[in-house]
This record gives sequence, structure tokens and C-alpha cells, in this order.
Amino acid sequence: MIGATVQSALADRIVEAIQTVVGPGPVALHEPRFAGNEWMYLKECLDSTYVSSVGKFVNRFEAELAAYMGAKYAVAVVNGTAALHVALRLAGVQPGDEVLIPALTFVATANAVSYCGAVPHFVDSEQSTLGVNPRALREYLRIITEVRDQQCVNRATGRVIRALVPMHAFGHPVDIEGVLAVAADFRLALVEDAAESLGSTVRGRHTGTFGLMGTLSFNGNKTITTGGGGAIISNDFELARRAKHLTTTAKVNHRWEFWHDEIGYNYRMPNINAALGCAQLEQLPDLLRAKRRLFERYAAEFARISKVHLMAEPKESRSNYWLQTLLLDDSVAEQRDLILAATNEAGLMTRPAWTLMHRLAPYRTSPRMELPCVESLERRLINLPSSAQLAMEKAG
Amino acid sequence: MIGATVQSALADRIVEAIQTVVGPGPVALHEPRFAGNEWMYLKECLDSTYVSSVGKFVNRFEAELAAYMGAKYAVAVVNGTAALHVALRLAGVQPGDEVLIPALTFVATANAVSYCGAVPHFVDSEQSTLGVNPRALREYLRIITEVRDQQCVNRATGRVIRALVPMHAFGHPVDIEGVLAVAADFRLALVEDAAESLGSTVRGRHTGTFGLMGTLSFNGNKTITTGGGGAIISNDFELARRAKHLTTTAKVNHRWEFWHDEIGYNYRMPNINAALGCAQLEQLPDLLRAKRRLFERYAAEFARISKVHLMAEPKESRSNYWLQTLLLDDSVAEQRDLILAATNEAGLMTRPAWTLMHRLAPYRTSPRMELPCVESLERRLINLPSSAQLAMEKAG
Repeated sequence: MIGATVQSALADRIVEAIQTVVGPGPVALHEPRFAGNEWMYLKECLDSTYVSSVGKFVNRFEAELAAYMGAKYAVAVVNGTAALHVALRLAGVQPGDEVLIPALTFVATANAVSYCGAVPHFVDSEQSTLGVNPRALREYLRIITEVRDQQCVNRATGRVIRALVPMHAFGHPVDIEGVLAVAADFRLALVEDAAESLGSTVRGRHTGTFGLMGTLSFNGNKTITTGGGGAIISNDFELARRAKHLTTTAKVNHRWEFWHDEIGYNYRMPNINAALGCAQLEQLPDLLRAKRRLFERYAAEFARISKVHLMAEPKESRSNYWLQTLLLDDSVAEQRDLILAATNEAGLMTRPAWTLMHRLAPYRTSPRMELPCVESLERRLINLPSSAQLAMEKAG
Repeated sequence: MIGATVQSALADRIVEAIQTVVGPGPVALHEPRFAGNEWMYLKECLDSTYVSSVGKFVNRFEAELAAYMGAKYAVAVVNGTAALHVALRLAGVQPGDEVLIPALTFVATANAVSYCGAVPHFVDSEQSTLGVNPRALREYLRIITEVRDQQCVNRATGRVIRALVPMHAFGHPVDIEGVLAVAADFRLALVEDAAESLGSTVRGRHTGTFGLMGTLSFNGNKTITTGGGGAIISNDFELARRAKHLTTTAKVNHRWEFWHDEIGYNYRMPNINAALGCAQLEQLPDLLRAKRRLFERYAAEFARISKVHLMAEPKESRSNYWLQTLLLDDSVAEQRDLILAATNEAGLMTRPAWTLMHRLAPYRTSPRMELPCVESLERRLINLPSSAQLAMEKAG
């Protein structure tokens, strides 16, 4: 006995628009595509018996990823959370510090701060990028902080605000130049959470390469996947060396001795996952083209529906269009759940924004600025089916 | 220009003995063997596109692992370190607590304690098992602790000693019944580090199933591998449920909402790694038979060499013989490094014990009991090439 669904003409129109682009469904929110050398590399990996934390695919994946991004170094790890954790430690985050992160992000960003014994401090977004609003943040920091001994101190809590972690939401680049200027002016280490933005650039430069370090994710729902995986990106040799050391149990190289010179982590990406990554990376340009094509098709359809707006890449940026994002006008925001129900019931997987960080039980008491933009976005945002294969050109 | 190697008749005899068993070499310390359905399951995994944190192989691996071990529940995670970290948290380990762990172990055991904000407290071994000596530990705790409010308090530091983590070294079961009695008498939660002992039993019961929780590792050097992987074992439904929740970012199930009710971890084993694990688990009985056969062959050879002793499974136990272990008599202990050099130079990979935990920079100031047995073992212990394929029966 399923209860009668409340009718919504807008929901029906959105279901139709999605079906016009992706077909009748069912379609997932985001599925990986394995159409290249995955198979061959996995076989090579098994045949070599090197499936674990040492092996040629890990080194190759790191080299090819760094080259693709135009970064000097990449260190492959088990997932994006691990990448953030280690990057924050290397950025000097200490127990009792605060770290500025978006309120609109996946929980991993906040958890990574907690793993360092530090406290996340939540920042508002701007609608044009969905990411950190540098003007609002600057004004806020001007009021609540003071610089003492070259450190930014939160006057209300007395804690040092050590770092700032902008996140390129759904693949759309944040106003990174604005954010960098705030970080410089307030003595904040900048760690760029590029978990969602592999392939996204600002003025031709890859996201994740602007800060002290960048972090990536290759989870199964990302543009390319290694099963589980992530990476730390840096142009600084010493930071990259430290990242590799900390993620490989801080073991000092020796033919047979076990010498660990600090508390490290078992965060190294296994070779079998990296084998998958090497094959996926080869297909990234094709995947990005398809995702852009999918955006264009959605944009054409949604242009015909009033009171909804498909998120386009910010100015001077190129987005990877990881997750297509629909924003409802305020006047129809109360229909969000109807639309989510109608689309999911039609087999078209959609989802709302993450629950904002300051609403989650473990982070309710964390410091935060006023969050009018993300609270508005939360009410109005819907992610659409976004897999590259929904707009892949036929082969041959 | 390689310097002249110091001659050692004993080292030469040991090289000969190993070569008699495993052939001329080169041989690794421990290599995995992929002779079953690895290939098929990986292909099935790719074809399904479920390679990441959701998928049928993860659930199947958990069910088959639990069934094999005779445990009710298994929760698959990214590695043994993650398994220990979460098991300790679930055992109630709090920041500022102490946790008793062997001084003779891999650094992961100590690091997992540190991740909880707790302090490792190092315990001596007994030579017959290489693991925790329950009689010496009992006597030590009787002197240094008192029970207050049902908690074991270290009188010297004032800290609560919350848990005890015996480890089944190189696959040889510890005196688990003696250790359990100490844990019960001193109100210590028992987490069994079975990272190395998949397939090892005590009176027919599998290691890892005696304590509140057990932890396993499927790193590339273990008896079976998932590339990187581990598991938490428990017979308690609530602990297993909590372990799965904490290792999957503490996300509460919902069709589309993101609700995380506590600080969790991104520790779930990816499906592609579990696919490998399912294939490996099917071959475990064969691998264990081969490893036992290898032990017998080594034992026959080393019986002819005086002043060396091949470690055999403890009484009433069955060892998986993960790493074959040679102990030198005290009178020839000073030749350990010569033997390591001679064997490795001959292409026979051997290694000494791990550097004892209390010698490592991050743990030099941790509390510890007198450690005469492990300090003696450290001087005299050498692990030998131990791969199952060195003694696999020919097929067909």
C-alpha cells in the first residue's frame, strides 16, 4: 500500500526533462565507466603478485596524475579522507586549533579536522561557485580575529585558526584567487579540497595546485575511481616527501630493519587500486568531454522550465561537471522533497545537498559564521544523474 | 667495490639449509599466490561497476570470513591498522588511557593506541609463543595497579589501563587462556590482534574470536591478501553494528539524506579488494597445508644445525605458520647480522624481528614492564622465506 504521491506539475516537468536527456531510466546518480585498460592492468598486477602497498602502478599513477594536473608531486593514498587528514597535519594543524571549512561539504572535511584534534569552523558559500565566499569570510575574520605572533587568533575562543580548506563543490571551482588572498592576509595555511574537481581548472591551472597542498578522491562515485583512493598534491618537495613518509607508517628505508621515526599512518594506496587508476586516468579526457556534453543537454532542457536553474561553471573556470546541480527558485523551494521523491520513484536517482556541517550532531557546537547562502542552497539544491556514459559518443 | 664479507660457517650452513628447502632463489620473504578465482571475481566486479564501498563482494567476504573463523560477525575495512583503531575505540579506549600491548609487534598496534589519544604500555613476551607472557604480566599488574571504581589504574601515572591487546606473533597463538584470565581479573577489555594469525587456532577455536573483538590484516604480505585490507571480528551484534557504522563515516541509512550522527571513519574495504579476498579465502586451506609442509621441511633441515631452533606451534595450538622463525642460541646471537647479510646476499630474503616498540622515537617514553624476553628474542630472531608456493603440491 503506497500512499498517494502529492502532485506537483514542476516535479513532473523535471522528471520529463531528465528523461529526455538520459532516457527512461533507471539511472544512478553517478556510475564509473570501465572501458579502457582496467582489465589488462589488473591482470598485469595479479600476474606480478604485487597487489599491495608496493608496486609499479602506484608510482606510475602518482607520476601520471601529477603530470595531468601540472603539479610536481602526487602521493597516492587510500581515500580522500586520509589525504585531508595528512595534508592538515603537514599544514601544521595542532590539537586545539581551529580550521576554516565550508559548511556545505561532505563530512570527511570536518572529520579530517577532528582527527587532528582540531575544531572545524564553518564558512558560508557564494551561489556563483557554491564554494567559500572570500568577501564574506574576509569581513568575518576582520571582526572576530586578531593576528598575534604571526598567527590568526579567534578572539572569542582564544584558539589559533591555522588553516583554510576551500572545497570545489560538485566540481565547480571556488573563487580560488579571492580565497588565496584571504589566506595570505590572515596567515592561514591553504589546503585545497579538490576531492570532487579532478579535471576542473581556473584560468587553465588545475584545482588542487593553488594551495600549500591539494587533496583528491577516487571513490567509486567520482569522475575516475580506484575503488577507494585519494591523493595529496603538492609542488613542494619536502611536503611531498613528508606526505609519503607519514602515509607509509613513517618507516625509514632499510633492507630489513623496521625503524619508524614518528607516528605514521597505514594510508598507502594498494597497487591493485592504482592499476585501476592508471586505466581510468587514460580515459579522463573522454569522460570530461561526455560530462560537459551532458551539462549542455540538461541546460537546453532546463532552460525551458521556469523557476529552476542548472548550475554552470563559474567565470574564468572550467568545471569537470562532476555532479550536475539544479537550483530551485525560492518560490518553489518547498517542492524540493516532492521533486526528490518523484525523480527517485521514476528511477532517476537524485539527491539533495549534504546536510550542512553545523547541523550534524558532532559539529553542532563548532564555531561558525552566519550561513545565509548555504542555508538557502540547502533548501534549493538537487543533484541530477551525472554519469559520463549518459552522454558518451558512440565508439567508431 | 663491495667489501669482503666476514666469514661465518653458521651463516653458510643456514644459507644451504634454506636453499635445500626452497631452491636456489631468489625468494621473497612472503609472496601472495593467486591461483583461484581472483581473475573471475575481479572481472565480475568491473562488469558490475561496483568497485567501491558498496557491493556484493564486501558482504560476501564478511560472511565467508566470519563462517571460516566460527565468529558471528566480520566487518571488512581498509587495513589492519584501521581495524585496531576502531576496535580500540569500541572497547572504550579514551584519550589519556593506557593500553597494554606487546613490545614485540608491528608498529600499527602502538599507532592505533595513539590514534585514540591513549598511551601504549609495553608488555614482555614468553619464548614458547613469542606473545604476551600472562604470568609475568599478572605479577607486574599486581604491583603497579589498583582497581578503583571497577577500573584498573596505573598507580605511577594515575591513568586508567583500559585494554589489553595480545598479538599472535608470526601466526603462533599466544597463551590466550592465560591472557584472558589476566584481562578478567584486572578489568581490561581484550582486543585480539590476529593480523598475522588467520588460520591459527587454540584448542580448535580460531584466534581473534576469544576477546571482545579481534582484528585481522589482509596486507600483501599476509597468508591471504586483498591488496590492502583488514577486518574486525566479534560475536556481539551491537559491537559489530557499531564497527560497521564507525567505519562507514557514521552515516545513517536513508535514500538520499546525509546524516552522520558521530565522528566516523572512511575505513570501508572497497568491493574490488573484497573480490580478491573472496577468491583468496577459497584457497586458504590449501595455503595453510603448504605453509605447514614448508615448516616441516625447514624443521628437518634445521634439526641438523646446532645452536639454531625453528619455532614450532605452541602446545594445544595450531599455527598458520605465517612467517617461519628461526631463533639463534645466545652463544651465536652476535652472528645475527652476518646471517641476515649472507642470506639476503644469496637472494634468500630474511629479516630480523621488528624494532621493539620502546626503542622507537615516538614511544621511547611510554610506560613498560621489564622486557628481558623480547630483548633476548630481538637479538636472536630471524624470519625465513615463508610463501606457501615454496611447498605447494604440484596440481593434477
